[in-house]
Amino acid sequence: MTSEDEIISTLLHALGASRPTPAGIGDDGAVLEPADGRVCVLDAMVEGVHFDLSWTTLSDAAFKVFAVNASDLWAMGAEPRAWLLGLGLPRRLADADSVRAIAGGFRDAIRSLDVEVALVGGDTVRTREEAFLSVTMFGALDGEPLVRSAARPGQGVYVDGPTGLAAAGLELLRSGRRPPPDLLNAHARPMPRRLLAEPARRAGITASIDVSDGLVRDAERVADASSVSITLDPECVPGHERLRDVAGDLGMNALDWVLHGGDDYIRLVTADQRPGPSWTRVGSVDAGPPGVYVSSGGRTARVEPSGFEHF
Amino acid sequence: MTSEDEIISTLLHALGASRPTPAGIGDDGAVLEPADGRVCVLDAMVEGVHFDLSWTTLSDAAFKVFAVNASDLWAMGAEPRAWLLGLGLPRRLADADSVRAIAGGFRDAIRSLDVEVALVGGDTVRTREEAFLSVTMFGALDGEPLVRSAARPGQGVYVDGPTGLAAAGLELLRSGRRPPPDLLNAHARPMPRRLLAEPARRAGITASIDVSDGLVRDAERVADASSVSITLDPECVPGHERLRDVAGDLGMNALDWVLHGGDDYIRLVTADQRPGPSWTRVGSVDAGPPGVYVSSGGRTARVEPSGFEHF
Repeated sequence: MTSEDEIISTLLHALGASRPTPAGIGDDGAVLEPADGRVCVLDAMVEGVHFDLSWTTLSDAAFKVFAVNASDLWAMGAEPRAWLLGLGLPRRLADADSVRAIAGGFRDAIRSLDVEVALVGGDTVRTREEAFLSVTMFGALDGEPLVRSAARPGQGVYVDGPTGLAAAGLELLRSGRRPPPDLLNAHARPMPRRLLAEPARRAGITASIDVSDGLVRDAERVADASSVSITLDPECVPGHERLRDVAGDLGMNALDWVLHGGDDYIRLVTADQRPGPSWTRVGSVDAGPPGVYVSSGGRTARVEPSGFEHF
Repeated sequence: MTSEDEIISTLLHALGASRPTPAGIGDDGAVLEPADGRVCVLDAMVEGVHFDLSWTTLSDAAFKVFAVNASDLWAMGAEPRAWLLGLGLPRRLADADSVRAIAGGFRDAIRSLDVEVALVGGDTVRTREEAFLSVTMFGALDGEPLVRSAARPGQGVYVDGPTGLAAAGLELLRSGRRPPPDLLNAHARPMPRRLLAEPARRAGITASIDVSDGLVRDAERVADASSVSITLDPECVPGHERLRDVAGDLGMNALDWVLHGGDDYIRLVTADQRPGPSWTRVGSVDAGPPGVYVSSGGRTARVEPSGFEHF
């Protein structure tokens, strides 16, 4: 078992250098550059609930909780600059190898997502039973943030990646099978794409959200916040065809994964026209009472979110 | 069992109004006023490790984790302005009464500490076994922060409150006795005092730290960061006499609580002269290799910290 000071030292050694810290570690709090701290997000993951060490690793959990926070910042159009780590470890995981695995997962995420961030502080605590990783991340923002409430009737709905892959990967793991690499990675090491507020606005994007709880559920959040209705065509969503084969083998419905899977960490935006080559149109914004409709095979029906509920 | 949306709604209803939020809740991240986000701290508490529901309440745990974060900000001379909550609840505690108790504890802390803060975001997650509360708090700062590294030989060491009371209170609880109200409150509902950087500097304060892991351990952090030696006189520390009676009844040593008890959440500062009526001189800063000495009954000896280790 390793001491709190050793844990902090391992983390700082692996992670402290990506961006210089203005002041902080070693004092009671961290002092941020004013530009770095404008947007903040917090996402936590709990062992046995959000990750399961029987089919994933501490390194993957660290990668994922980092990526999930970066995804939230990019949904607001802010660039990650600094972060705090709340790390809870039970005795069985408070050894040097576990801490190195966690530090390595964070380091992989920082490199893979190509961000320059400073680890400016946090708290390392013992737990009785289960590990948790709670990340608070700060982002710099040029101008105003991208928000959910700026969708306008007549716009298109665009996404920058597939949905349903993570849910399919998790389903395969739960059923004792080894998922193909793309589905495993979608679940274990999500790779959200960078979106910054000013370039996004120049590309015509008005509303933005991070799809984390399922496409329909997060589209509904945009619809509610903007007082519009949104119609989605799931057959336009990237990854849809890929999932049909996997679903068939398992006797599952690919459409459920695409619409309600969750854990996707892609961006859903609205814009008057396609914002660029990385975006796929998956639906439209219409006037009308807030709600989400799905159009498939020439028929359109209202859908309720059956997305991931944390409780 | 209550849903995540109901939990968030209960928390916001109880806590959202103390200070208006610039933007954020309802979007993927919170946008802070630039002045509000300069200093950030994170402290987490875990059920069964930092609080025990057999002798404390969820409301007390919420009060304490809030106070502990405010204490860190005040040690830096920053005023709490905004906070994020990472809340992990197992099923047995995910009911409306528990959530109301948590919200009530936070509300009590905000009122008792007389701070104006906005709850700007967070994450509510299910856990398998134990509850955790992880608070990230942001503070506004005039000028430069107070740091540990600014103690100078020839200065006095001052504290703004007693040490050892919380440790004595916890010891009584662990031994099955009901602590007197001051010791119970010192453990369950600590009340750190406000310290702001500019008034502190005008009062002659140079170095500052929050005493949370024991007087000797935190004094040693100042000594190390400032490359000075510190000599403490435990008989000058407020609360010392109070503890002698309690310790006698239990066959314990009051001096251990005073020097190493931890969980005190008072400020230890160094200054050329007494900074004001709320401060008590408890020692001196000297040139010499970093270390902490205790002077008692005319003798002075080097002490090693035996303060609280989180692991």
